[in-house]
Amino acid sequence: MEKKELLHEGKAKRVFATDVDGVLIQDFKDDATAFDGAKKGTIMNKGEINNNMSAKLFQLLEKHGIPTHFIETVSTNEMAMRSLDMFMIEAIMRNVAAGSLVRNLGMEQGMRFDRPIFEIHLKDDDFHDPLMNKEHVIAMGLATATELQVIEARSRHVNTVLIDFFNMIGIDLIDFKIEFGRGPDGVIYVADEISPDSCRYWDKETGESIDKDRFRFDMGKVDEAYSEIFQRVMTSN
Amino acid sequence: MEKKELLHEGKAKRVFATDVDGVLIQDFKDDATAFDGAKKGTIMNKGEINNNMSAKLFQLLEKHGIPTHFIETVSTNEMAMRSLDMFMIEAIMRNVAAGSLVRNLGMEQGMRFDRPIFEIHLKDDDFHDPLMNKEHVIAMGLATATELQVIEARSRHVNTVLIDFFNMIGIDLIDFKIEFGRGPDGVIYVADEISPDSCRYWDKETGESIDKDRFRFDMGKVDEAYSEIFQRVMTSN
Repeated sequence: MEKKELLHEGKAKRVFATDVDGVLIQDFKDDATAFDGAKKGTIMNKGEINNNMSAKLFQLLEKHGIPTHFIETVSTNEMAMRSLDMFMIEAIMRNVAAGSLVRNLGMEQGMRFDRPIFEIHLKDDDFHDPLMNKEHVIAMGLATATELQVIEARSRHVNTVLIDFFNMIGIDLIDFKIEFGRGPDGVIYVADEISPDSCRYWDKETGESIDKDRFRFDMGKVDEAYSEIFQRVMTSN
Repeated sequence: MEKKELLHEGKAKRVFATDVDGVLIQDFKDDATAFDGAKKGTIMNKGEINNNMSAKLFQLLEKHGIPTHFIETVSTNEMAMRSLDMFMIEAIMRNVAAGSLVRNLGMEQGMRFDRPIFEIHLKDDDFHDPLMNKEHVIAMGLATATELQVIEARSRHVNTVLIDFFNMIGIDLIDFKIEFGRGPDGVIYVADEISPDSCRYWDKETGESIDKDRFRFDMGKVDEAYSEIFQRVMTSN
């Protein structure tokens, strides 16, 4: 497979065309941003960590029957993936209150939900990825009611698989964001990445964040957190 | 009925106890505020207008079998109402895109929805009445899933009744906010008010706003708009 032109450059990833029909290459950068790009920096080996951790977790999801965009890693920082028609929404699953639930709705940090909460946000930095409800999504033509049902069911399934996996390596999965795309075959695939950039991981013993919150809120030991979670994920079975 | 002590003072209304069990008096002020109180002013006869317009519309809803808190008007600016255990959420029904849908989600102003959109917001000025989804409401214990179903069904019913009524008087009902409370009898009642403060009314011929947006956005003719809508509502059958 040969890498071709740059199709899209985001804050943390670049996407390239390839000479294979329906296949793209996603290149993970070490660049870190937060608050819609207002805060910028780099995190040591982040590209490599997020690429390989995502690869392992996408393979785990596939084993559980959840279709993902992942094909294979092609270099330290790059994975080959299916070319999809992406939904311009972000799906968020929350097991414990943190982040915007505390900031925007006044929930108590650390409150554990009886039933995990499914949220949809508009994927648009100009509007700061605002929360939407399902009716907004349908009215804006971002997904149909049926597609939303699939996206919610897959998000909940991903959550149960990831909770079990992270539990095994001493991590409490607080919440995560995933994205979805439609394949030419009509299947709705999990896409984007599953990494410390897109999830909140709290150590089950110490309660400490081992994720991008350390960068967002200047909590220190950012590089160490990414290395630590990478180490735990990659050495687990 | 005798008016007793002040129980609660809001930005536009005051609520008093009475000597009758289960009955309160709601007093509508001429004060106008917008953007969580950041903008302040007064609107001529607003208290009288909102009290009498709400009274007429609550009676209209009752005729259609929708339970409301309304008992009777007791003075120019006051109504007697049932004492309810209020839900700390605001229900919004939207027929056409305007306001926060344009500002926060980038929808095109004036886009008409195939199906009216039901939204829930947290009733909390400190957090700027943020949008929530149903799962947030349940997790925060603000209403049960069953109560939310009733609140949504009642909101949609109110919407169809009000669309027809305002259509008759040359008004396009764009959106409105209502609040609900639980009675001691277990019934969920429509409460608060239905007025130019809580609805968007666009004249069907000119497209002009005849509501609080004229105050919010310094569009001029604020007093005239309140008088105009009041006149149309009160003289209709």
